[in-house]
Amino acid sequence: MGDVPESHPRYASLKARKQLTEAANAGLLADSALIAHGRGEAFDYLIGEMTCDVAREAIGEVAARLQAADKPILSVNGNTVALAGPQMIACAAVLNCPLEVNIYYRTPERMRALLSALEGQRKEAVALYPELAENIANVEMLGANPDGRIPHLDGPRANCHTDGILSADVVLVPLEDGDRCEALIAMGKTVCVVDLNPLSRTARMASITIVDELTRCIPILLETLMNETKSPNHEWDNEQNLRDTINVILRNLG
Amino acid sequence: MGDVPESHPRYASLKARKQLTEAANAGLLADSALIAHGRGEAFDYLIGEMTCDVAREAIGEVAARLQAADKPILSVNGNTVALAGPQMIACAAVLNCPLEVNIYYRTPERMRALLSALEGQRKEAVALYPELAENIANVEMLGANPDGRIPHLDGPRANCHTDGILSADVVLVPLEDGDRCEALIAMGKTVCVVDLNPLSRTARMASITIVDELTRCIPILLETLMNETKSPNHEWDNEQNLRDTINVILRNLG
Repeated sequence: MGDVPESHPRYASLKARKQLTEAANAGLLADSALIAHGRGEAFDYLIGEMTCDVAREAIGEVAARLQAADKPILSVNGNTVALAGPQMIACAAVLNCPLEVNIYYRTPERMRALLSALEGQRKEAVALYPELAENIANVEMLGANPDGRIPHLDGPRANCHTDGILSADVVLVPLEDGDRCEALIAMGKTVCVVDLNPLSRTARMASITIVDELTRCIPILLETLMNETKSPNHEWDNEQNLRDTINVILRNLG
Repeated sequence: MGDVPESHPRYASLKARKQLTEAANAGLLADSALIAHGRGEAFDYLIGEMTCDVAREAIGEVAARLQAADKPILSVNGNTVALAGPQMIACAAVLNCPLEVNIYYRTPERMRALLSALEGQRKEAVALYPELAENIANVEMLGANPDGRIPHLDGPRANCHTDGILSADVVLVPLEDGDRCEALIAMGKTVCVVDLNPLSRTARMASITIVDELTRCIPILLETLMNETKSPNHEWDNEQNLRDTINVILRNLG
């Protein structure tokens, strides 16, 4: 990246790729994480590598649901920490809610590495958003000692905090897998996801799906949370939003 | 993979993913290789995870061009070795042509690791295709001592063998990057590629583009080379073939 100028048309994509490969080398990611990122790159290419209006609507609705929640939580995995950790911490700061590390392939080493990376990112977040410094310092980071389990899921991927994901009413969980998304929905939660594939099981299962690239959409979400107070639209039609996104792809391909 | 049965609907995709992550751990791949594989997975999903008729036509044409070549060569990179090394060796055996390791991010360690992996795969190829045993034993593996350079390319990615890629008239080079594809075309060669993204620069630059997943299409190419003698179609319209592939995607999305 040293010799790639910010004006390079693929700068954002190359930067994201660098953040991911560095995170992989630092032990933050499962083997499959880089492959998953590549799938996202392909869908991003098809949606035009920009936040489309359909995605902006979903971002606004996610902001509204989080603001109106009794007990919101932000759930992060390795790719989310690598790509948008400081921005997610800032969102949690604005919402005064905890952030929980919740990974599919849970190992003690990766959990420790992620929680330690987040502590470093807390400082980055303060530098980026000094007006939120006090709230950022107070963001609770969960994940180290899960004492609950998401029902209907096998193995360590079900582990979570009773005070965190288990009792939350609205969960923002970018880059989630289909099984866990389904299990959270079955618990009656409002599940907000970020997924570049509008056809994925996660995208179709979720309450609200932002089909956009993480490093683009989380800053927009943060700005919305900081500057607007929205009311939830309880008529939100997620299926229609996904169909509209597929139409964006069809137009780009056609 | 131990507990995934061959009947699993995603068996082929999971197996490919496993081969790639194992190759990455063995030092055969550049950092970006898993991300590139993920991009391919997404496009494969969109083309329906099957070899479409449009791809079969391209495979047939590639077989014809290789059979009619004066000096054909098969160029392989890390992902190709990981996914279809033995099958590529078998194709080289049928064509009586060399195979050259040619990688974008060339380091002595990765070149050694790939050439050593290919020697192991030569034995696998004999076990898979005993009728080709003698030819397989004679396949020349190039790459260790490049003595030529592809014009108009900077850095180590231009290195190649004078007796291999540099003097070949027809090159089969799966999963190639756009720059090198363009440079090979500029040398007047017939460049046959395998690329799951019908919109990529490689796909659009190549003489013949097979838009298909490597572990599916190389065995079909091998069977065609073994059992049919085809004549090249010098009216081959690669752009039309790519448009037909995009129509397959549009139908699947629609």
